[in-house]
Amino acid sequence: MAKDESVIRRIYLDWAASSPYSKNDNSVPFGNPSSHHREGRYAKQALENARKRCASVLNVPPETLYFTSGGTESNGIALFSNLARQGKGRVISSLAEHSSVREGMETLNKMGKSIGSITVDSTGRVTAETFTKTLDKYADTRFAVVMSVNNETGAVTDIASLMDVIQKRKEFAPIHFHCDLVQAIGKIPIDISNLEIDSASISAHKICGPRGIGLLYLKKPLEVFYSGGGQEKGIRGGTENTQGAIEFANCLTKYANTETVQLEYSQAKARWKKLMTSLSAMERCTLIPSCRAIEDDRFSPYILQAAFKNIPGEVMARALDDLGFAVSTGSACSSSSPERPVLVAMGIEENLRIEGIRISQGYSTTDEEIDLFLEAVTEVLKFL
Amino acid sequence: MAKDESVIRRIYLDWAASSPYSKNDNSVPFGNPSSHHREGRYAKQALENARKRCASVLNVPPETLYFTSGGTESNGIALFSNLARQGKGRVISSLAEHSSVREGMETLNKMGKSIGSITVDSTGRVTAETFTKTLDKYADTRFAVVMSVNNETGAVTDIASLMDVIQKRKEFAPIHFHCDLVQAIGKIPIDISNLEIDSASISAHKICGPRGIGLLYLKKPLEVFYSGGGQEKGIRGGTENTQGAIEFANCLTKYANTETVQLEYSQAKARWKKLMTSLSAMERCTLIPSCRAIEDDRFSPYILQAAFKNIPGEVMARALDDLGFAVSTGSACSSSSPERPVLVAMGIEENLRIEGIRISQGYSTTDEEIDLFLEAVTEVLKFL
Repeated sequence: MAKDESVIRRIYLDWAASSPYSKNDNSVPFGNPSSHHREGRYAKQALENARKRCASVLNVPPETLYFTSGGTESNGIALFSNLARQGKGRVISSLAEHSSVREGMETLNKMGKSIGSITVDSTGRVTAETFTKTLDKYADTRFAVVMSVNNETGAVTDIASLMDVIQKRKEFAPIHFHCDLVQAIGKIPIDISNLEIDSASISAHKICGPRGIGLLYLKKPLEVFYSGGGQEKGIRGGTENTQGAIEFANCLTKYANTETVQLEYSQAKARWKKLMTSLSAMERCTLIPSCRAIEDDRFSPYILQAAFKNIPGEVMARALDDLGFAVSTGSACSSSSPERPVLVAMGIEENLRIEGIRISQGYSTTDEEIDLFLEAVTEVLKFL
Repeated sequence: MAKDESVIRRIYLDWAASSPYSKNDNSVPFGNPSSHHREGRYAKQALENARKRCASVLNVPPETLYFTSGGTESNGIALFSNLARQGKGRVISSLAEHSSVREGMETLNKMGKSIGSITVDSTGRVTAETFTKTLDKYADTRFAVVMSVNNETGAVTDIASLMDVIQKRKEFAPIHFHCDLVQAIGKIPIDISNLEIDSASISAHKICGPRGIGLLYLKKPLEVFYSGGGQEKGIRGGTENTQGAIEFANCLTKYANTETVQLEYSQAKARWKKLMTSLSAMERCTLIPSCRAIEDDRFSPYILQAAFKNIPGEVMARALDDLGFAVSTGSACSSSSPERPVLVAMGIEENLRIEGIRISQGYSTTDEEIDLFLEAVTEVLKFL
């Protein structure tokens, strides 16, 4: 009874599952990937193909990747698995985590879960020594969250050294290690499989991808707090965002492959060297933390936090904005709050916390743009 | 110091907040709406403009609308507010809800929340009588969830009659009423403000919009379980999906305005009359529920559930798919499960549950397509 699929006229009577897409973008199948008909199967195929492409770039098995709506949701799913999981056990996180983790920890606490903090050193990183001490202090720890690249300072924690700590404690109960890789993927060389972390969060819109799509890496599936409609093998509910997944795969392929990351990293480092050398020479400028050296591999060359004496960060950012330069103070995600918990955790003194601005570059940033930025800073310093 | 904004060269150094979008789509500002610089302000403006346009179509104040990643998340945020809220109180939901609500109720139950069920009648709808009885039975109810249009059968619950029940019980503690409008908006005439419901879920991809964007309507803000980065006034965390919001506003404007809904409704009804008249005349076909009449306003003219004697729904759907027609059995969101809890709740006998297929039409469905579909069904019935 079946005719040649390629010539058959299709009549779509499954609008309740998903409707055709008004944008007439035929490059993405509009069917619901959970539907069994041809439109659904095509969409499923496109989704799985996108997953495979992401997996190939990230060097992990495709079945360890789950599409989510972004970094915040990926962090949430990982964190709240602690509410779904049987048994007790403490959840600990570093004091420099993104607000999505910080808020999530507060939620866990409200729900009666034991939580704990991992302090960061003056560079904003978690050291193996601190991690060991924290695990000694909280022997009931079953879940630990430490980010790779800090979104406000660029501090890069040596995740491998923390995984070594866990490895050495094999006689204790297992600890799930979750890593926020949102500012790391496509920016610094990283190999998820080699690191042997249990889960990780990745976002598309930090590497030129669309909003509303992210990935959760799970070495093994975990019990989730809320599976919604059971999509993504029960890990993340909601109709799958096929278009977002394809675009994310495109961006990962373009920007997160090993060669490109290495090349972009070295170029970013050269531009940051220029920027930091000039800023350091300015009397009123302090790099945050002040121990950050030019070409310091403890920090990502994509992010810099710096303070200008007697100029509140907000004023400086506004002045630069007026001259055509977009910089921020802290994280956009907590821009409505004047507090800087990450800088507090690093022991940065109050005036520097108030004066700090974040400068962050990307793939299309040029030497010329850095020069113009430095000129603009000099200009602003004359008036403020 | 400020120059004319329109001519100034922009240098973007806030990649950590959000990167430029690789698709070179300049129609949508790429900035992070939470950023304070010009790119952020433009994005914020675009986002708020989209919100206003959605609000205008839905006839609600813009500040009652929160962008989410879709219907499942909107339902989740509403449901899990019960975990964040101080005080006890039961959560009840109808037995015909979408799996995102069904799973959410199970999560609430696991978390120690008292839950309860509202039965549906043989049409799959919640009646005022049943709702009253349920509230009498569960006097501690503080939160009730009943959908408007059922996604599997098209049954339309008279939400206004349930709101009347709540109104009449004003002397009792207040009850938050949440309504899943995913299959209602753009399909049946509905006025959220008039209904006086407390919250509602809406999805873009059911009305030709993109995946990954939805709305949560909240008459008043509620405490949320997880606010992530605090976006959407703390109701929904995660960098705002500006592009999705704009496209959603476009679709709502196009399809969900009162005139278009009325026009499309009457056309859908005429096509469904043709379909149902012919199906009813087929000896082996039973409409589900069998009490559903042709032109029956208790059901949405966009969705029909029907069974064909001795043909399992999956087989029927596959046979039709081979002939070029996309229909489903139940909900795509629970397509991996052979169970049909909605039909069970309606008291549909087992053989009809197994044989049921869902036919659902939309704006571009034509009379000719219905004719061809009926021919295909006749064809399949000859062989199976």
